[in-house]
Amino acid sequence: MTDRADNLPERRLPERARPATPPDRRPGGRTARIRAQVLDAVRAELGQHGYEGLTMEGVAARAGVHRATVYRRWQDVGGLLADLLDAAGEDDWEPPNTGSLRDDLTALNDEIQESLVTQPSIPEALMAASFRSAKAAQAQQQLWEDRYARCEVLVERAVERGDLPPHTDARRLLIAATAPVYHQLVLLRTAPDPQLPAHAATTATLAAAAGAFSRPAAGEES
Amino acid sequence: MTDRADNLPERRLPERARPATPPDRRPGGRTARIRAQVLDAVRAELGQHGYEGLTMEGVAARAGVHRATVYRRWQDVGGLLADLLDAAGEDDWEPPNTGSLRDDLTALNDEIQESLVTQPSIPEALMAASFRSAKAAQAQQQLWEDRYARCEVLVERAVERGDLPPHTDARRLLIAATAPVYHQLVLLRTAPDPQLPAHAATTATLAAAAGAFSRPAAGEES
Repeated sequence: MTDRADNLPERRLPERARPATPPDRRPGGRTARIRAQVLDAVRAELGQHGYEGLTMEGVAARAGVHRATVYRRWQDVGGLLADLLDAAGEDDWEPPNTGSLRDDLTALNDEIQESLVTQPSIPEALMAASFRSAKAAQAQQQLWEDRYARCEVLVERAVERGDLPPHTDARRLLIAATAPVYHQLVLLRTAPDPQLPAHAATTATLAAAAGAFSRPAAGEES
Repeated sequence: MTDRADNLPERRLPERARPATPPDRRPGGRTARIRAQVLDAVRAELGQHGYEGLTMEGVAARAGVHRATVYRRWQDVGGLLADLLDAAGEDDWEPPNTGSLRDDLTALNDEIQESLVTQPSIPEALMAASFRSAKAAQAQQQLWEDRYARCEVLVERAVERGDLPPHTDARRLLIAATAPVYHQLVLLRTAPDPQLPAHAATTATLAAAAGAFSRPAAGEES
């Protein structure tokens, strides 16, 4: 749902996978390693200085990579952010699978809330950056799309269990369940409420049971 | 709910209220007029160039006001944005009153959606700016608070009509109803969906009828 992979240390390449030996000769080996180093540096710089302080020079210096390489491959700061978002979409993240729609949505919202309240929040920095860089905005849009698409299985499982009416619009349900968390933390900037993830999940679950996301003719029931 | 007052031309001072004669001598008359001119200029510059292109000089020039006056009174661009948000909270906006909770929420969401899809969208520009200016962020937070507080009457009326359980948490209901509109248009940047305002309103209404926003022990029902 979020690019949480980006701010969890364990998602970085483990030390043992980082060759201390000369560049790997396999096709893509060195390229992949440089990308990992540069994206790690982007995360670190973004966390420390925000979008304002993100520069090609700072990233190259922190990554220990030639500036010319960074410019050639990523062109500009927008290119770096776009690649960071692309990388977040390449992970093997899967949505929670607890056996209950409400608990799945709660666990999902807990993850989202945690990624947004952890300071510095890379997801929040990326959302802020997407207002200023068209490349970052496009990549952010793709990441949202990828995360919501991966979460649809959570609704499909609830339909299979008979907990939801068939023809439930998974995307609308997922957006209803998660939007309040983003709205409160990113836009309203209210203090984090530990109850919010479960409340928002329960609201969406109750609405779903009442047919709010049924297709067709959703929205005509009440 | 949004600072829609800011991008609707009719909210500006009508021409006849702008003295073509020498400055009003009443206390506050000239001050109020300069403020109106400057804030009109901020709206226009923000709509045309976004936060990036907003400068004290550009605003002073467009407003026809001395730069020194603008600096003295507003200090910096963050001060201008904060005052624009404050001004939006000083209007006499009232939430819809249709006689039905769902229709009230739909009308509210229609207003929000319109304010966000109208290009240039001043509310969206202000949200973007609030990621970069602490003053703007604080003023934006106050405006959200003001708008949601004004909307609570909409829930109170539904409780009085017997359409909702007593002890319904008005704020959580309002956030659930409106969050999907902001989430889709501001963060996900999906194409505007004409059905979205009504869908989100219906979802919140169904959830409310099922007790999702009842206090205490909300969230324990399903």
